[in-house]
Amino acid sequence: MTGKTKALKTHKSFEGLTRFWEHDSRVTGTKMNFSTFTPPGGKPNGCLIWLSGLTCTDENFMAKAGAQKFLAEANLMVICPDTSPRGLQLPQEHESWDFGSGAGFYVDATTPGYRDHYRMYSYIVDEVYQLVESEFSVGKVSISGHSMGGHGALTIGLREPAKFKSVSAFSPIVNPVEVPWGKKAFTGYFGSDQQKWKQHDACELLLAGKKHAEPILVDQGSEDSFLKEQLRTENFVRACERSGQKAHVHMRDGYDHSYYFVSTYIADHVRFHAERLNT
Amino acid sequence: MTGKTKALKTHKSFEGLTRFWEHDSRVTGTKMNFSTFTPPGGKPNGCLIWLSGLTCTDENFMAKAGAQKFLAEANLMVICPDTSPRGLQLPQEHESWDFGSGAGFYVDATTPGYRDHYRMYSYIVDEVYQLVESEFSVGKVSISGHSMGGHGALTIGLREPAKFKSVSAFSPIVNPVEVPWGKKAFTGYFGSDQQKWKQHDACELLLAGKKHAEPILVDQGSEDSFLKEQLRTENFVRACERSGQKAHVHMRDGYDHSYYFVSTYIADHVRFHAERLNT
Repeated sequence: MTGKTKALKTHKSFEGLTRFWEHDSRVTGTKMNFSTFTPPGGKPNGCLIWLSGLTCTDENFMAKAGAQKFLAEANLMVICPDTSPRGLQLPQEHESWDFGSGAGFYVDATTPGYRDHYRMYSYIVDEVYQLVESEFSVGKVSISGHSMGGHGALTIGLREPAKFKSVSAFSPIVNPVEVPWGKKAFTGYFGSDQQKWKQHDACELLLAGKKHAEPILVDQGSEDSFLKEQLRTENFVRACERSGQKAHVHMRDGYDHSYYFVSTYIADHVRFHAERLNT
Repeated sequence: MTGKTKALKTHKSFEGLTRFWEHDSRVTGTKMNFSTFTPPGGKPNGCLIWLSGLTCTDENFMAKAGAQKFLAEANLMVICPDTSPRGLQLPQEHESWDFGSGAGFYVDATTPGYRDHYRMYSYIVDEVYQLVESEFSVGKVSISGHSMGGHGALTIGLREPAKFKSVSAFSPIVNPVEVPWGKKAFTGYFGSDQQKWKQHDACELLLAGKKHAEPILVDQGSEDSFLKEQLRTENFVRACERSGQKAHVHMRDGYDHSYYFVSTYIADHVRFHAERLNT
């Protein structure tokens, strides 16, 4: 590791390394935390960027998803960024769990205060992406995530299909412009400019012609308590059909929104990305 | 579920169910929390009791060990009790993380105040054991655990070999009478009566002739920061040799004390117990 990227903790896992880092981000203008798992041997075939959900940090996926075993088998690394800048004191930033800290929504904000730091879109697409190559010497990257992070994976993957070899999501917010979480966050990050909102909505992007060459993999629990009000998986299925985007959307009977669900199907997602990264 | 045992949360996992419960314990005289994973099909071949370590609750193993996949494959259930009674206000109970709440050490205390509630040995051996049969209709039981819970598994397994088909541990405190954690806890729970202490020390039990018919499986990380001062794995190896207890003690190069280590080897432990429970 060079420069200001600093390892905070290292845990050997499945013969590879689960590590927690901090670095000075040029994009957010703050320190940022991220975690990685690197498989044994030190020469991964590719990297999965995992975007986490509301209230999460860079730790949840590493501790709870049980992905390390399957990443080690597939010779892939994963990098998990934090879900927002930290250590700031912006207006309303720490007042609720679905806006501000822990809730960056993977957009570049345009509202005062937020526009200087809440630049999570550029942070992922530019800085984290480059860091995978510069710090870990891995050139091929795919993207996945959970809930708000599923929204991030879908929107980033559709907007930047050349950079991300494959895209998947668990329990994603597929149509944020239509649901309470998205309306609140986008109002806070963009104000009322609906054109900005639509550039960060997977359904709107599909209907506007954005597309990924590979099928998109989605797993969703049928008993997810956020399904009807916030996630709206059926809107994504419809948008894929109308736009011709190939997708595998699995409605998993009886599963909820938790990492107990993610852990059940993470092996499928790792293998899905491995098939596309290992070529 | 009958009587006062109440399900608090249910998460479908690997086609089985991860559940969190509370019940009124007749042994501790308090409400107690525990968690279970039951494999798909609802007819497990046996049950593993998992005892957790210092500061843990009934949640850590379920969220972090990644055991559900392997339990489902082996058709075993697991039950994870909490690490102490809760909701009390005993002297010194909440002042440190290695004594009192979150640190019951799987003993029946004899000191004033504690002797009325801190009866974790009887709680595990009698009440939880019976509950596995009465509430889940499972008759065969094995035992495992981590750190303080590894101590619990070894001492309970050696004292009650007829009740527990097999015994394993991760990073166990094998010789508590010799180390700071054990001395502090046993002083608090027993006072200065060294005979009491020795009845809850795996090395002392082996040297006093206690034995399990099956080999005991232990995994220990070589980079565990507690190894030299608190765990003393080598004392267990020596006590097994001297007493003729069969054991498989694996020193795992580079691994630490965390659940990242447990998750790496939990599949081995599930299979070890499955071989003995499925016969």
